[in-house]
Amino acid sequence: MLKRKLEACFSPAMFMPDENRDSIVIVIDVLRASSAICTAFANGASAVIPVADITEAKDYKSRGYLVAAERDGYILDFADFGNSPFNFTKEKVEGRTIVYSTTNGTAIINLASSSYMTVIGSFLNISALTEWLIKQDRDIMLFCAGWKNRFNIEDTVCAGAMAERLMETSLYSTICDSTIAAMDLWSLAKTDLPGYIDKVAQRTRLRDKGLDDCIQFCITNDFTGKIPVMKNGILVDHDL
Amino acid sequence: MLKRKLEACFSPAMFMPDENRDSIVIVIDVLRASSAICTAFANGASAVIPVADITEAKDYKSRGYLVAAERDGYILDFADFGNSPFNFTKEKVEGRTIVYSTTNGTAIINLASSSYMTVIGSFLNISALTEWLIKQDRDIMLFCAGWKNRFNIEDTVCAGAMAERLMETSLYSTICDSTIAAMDLWSLAKTDLPGYIDKVAQRTRLRDKGLDDCIQFCITNDFTGKIPVMKNGILVDHDL
Repeated sequence: MLKRKLEACFSPAMFMPDENRDSIVIVIDVLRASSAICTAFANGASAVIPVADITEAKDYKSRGYLVAAERDGYILDFADFGNSPFNFTKEKVEGRTIVYSTTNGTAIINLASSSYMTVIGSFLNISALTEWLIKQDRDIMLFCAGWKNRFNIEDTVCAGAMAERLMETSLYSTICDSTIAAMDLWSLAKTDLPGYIDKVAQRTRLRDKGLDDCIQFCITNDFTGKIPVMKNGILVDHDL
Repeated sequence: MLKRKLEACFSPAMFMPDENRDSIVIVIDVLRASSAICTAFANGASAVIPVADITEAKDYKSRGYLVAAERDGYILDFADFGNSPFNFTKEKVEGRTIVYSTTNGTAIINLASSSYMTVIGSFLNISALTEWLIKQDRDIMLFCAGWKNRFNIEDTVCAGAMAERLMETSLYSTICDSTIAAMDLWSLAKTDLPGYIDKVAQRTRLRDKGLDDCIQFCITNDFTGKIPVMKNGILVDHDL
């Protein structure tokens, strides 16, 4: 049986849209965009519109949308809230369409948009996501958001956790060093994920801004069965 | 005491010249440019001129230089040899200046050229290199060449081995996830480096072309005490 290709990419600087036109691209930004978007859907949001530009986000706000917007971890003054997943409560988001603009996540979602399909992945939806992926019978690219074009550990170990589950099925093959390295780092991290994540740079950055309260939540498996997928520029749950 | 900064970069696509102007940049291309250049100096080459352009390499050849040139692992017809370290024998290179053009290595050496100093690192000179670095009292960037802008494992574990030695001195600090990941992957690889390297993509690529005979050599520690450094666009041994 022909196996499907499994690859990983550690930074938007290394992502090659032309090589991923036929793949499902999983966008992984554990701290915090992917986790926040999964939480929004878990709490009943009907759609998330990713927006890179602040002016565009402001325009949506003036038209009555709920807007989540931050730069470098700080909420923008016109926005309803920033991108801590704790902001996306059921009271706020149920039944709503949320406009979402972040430092890093939005640009990456757009970069992946020429692929066969763009999907949001995190620890929060890892079982639902990997089980759904296996049914799709498609090549897969695990696209780690990183931080300002740099490699980061939290997205990499999440990619490694997903890769481990996918490779266990024997449906996939990989000759991609990034995938192998991600699985190896996950093998080191998984026995004590909070301890492992404690040393990553983004934890220090978030802690310095008092934004690290959500880390434990963001590395929790299976908070939701929702799988946000991009359709016509808007994220919706996969079964819509 | 103020500690010096230690960082790693996994791909030329992620390298930021402006952020490394005050750092010593170690260019690591284990399979095979760094290893070949270290071998050339070990066997008595007096200088290596890195050249990106084939026309320029041809021009040097017509002026009597010894030229090593390959693309995608294959030797170019006008060249004296390709970039297997086994080509750089004492008989051929002693006392000679070698013009060196490769798929990947040359472009990376040029990219690093705006740093405080560019140095060639590999397993072959790891002890001499790290001991010399410690004496320099400078920030260090471990720049992995990768493969066609992608992450690769062999350069990463070599960077991890260097980082481990540097961090053991307590002279360096790092808040760089790439450095942490490189050290963690090295911790997995070091008990059986040949076995670990056996799974990397570049081994498959070289094997498919019959070019994998040098891998065992390229992961040998301390074949030489030479430390090739860039001076005025030409690589020479550091103590010249």
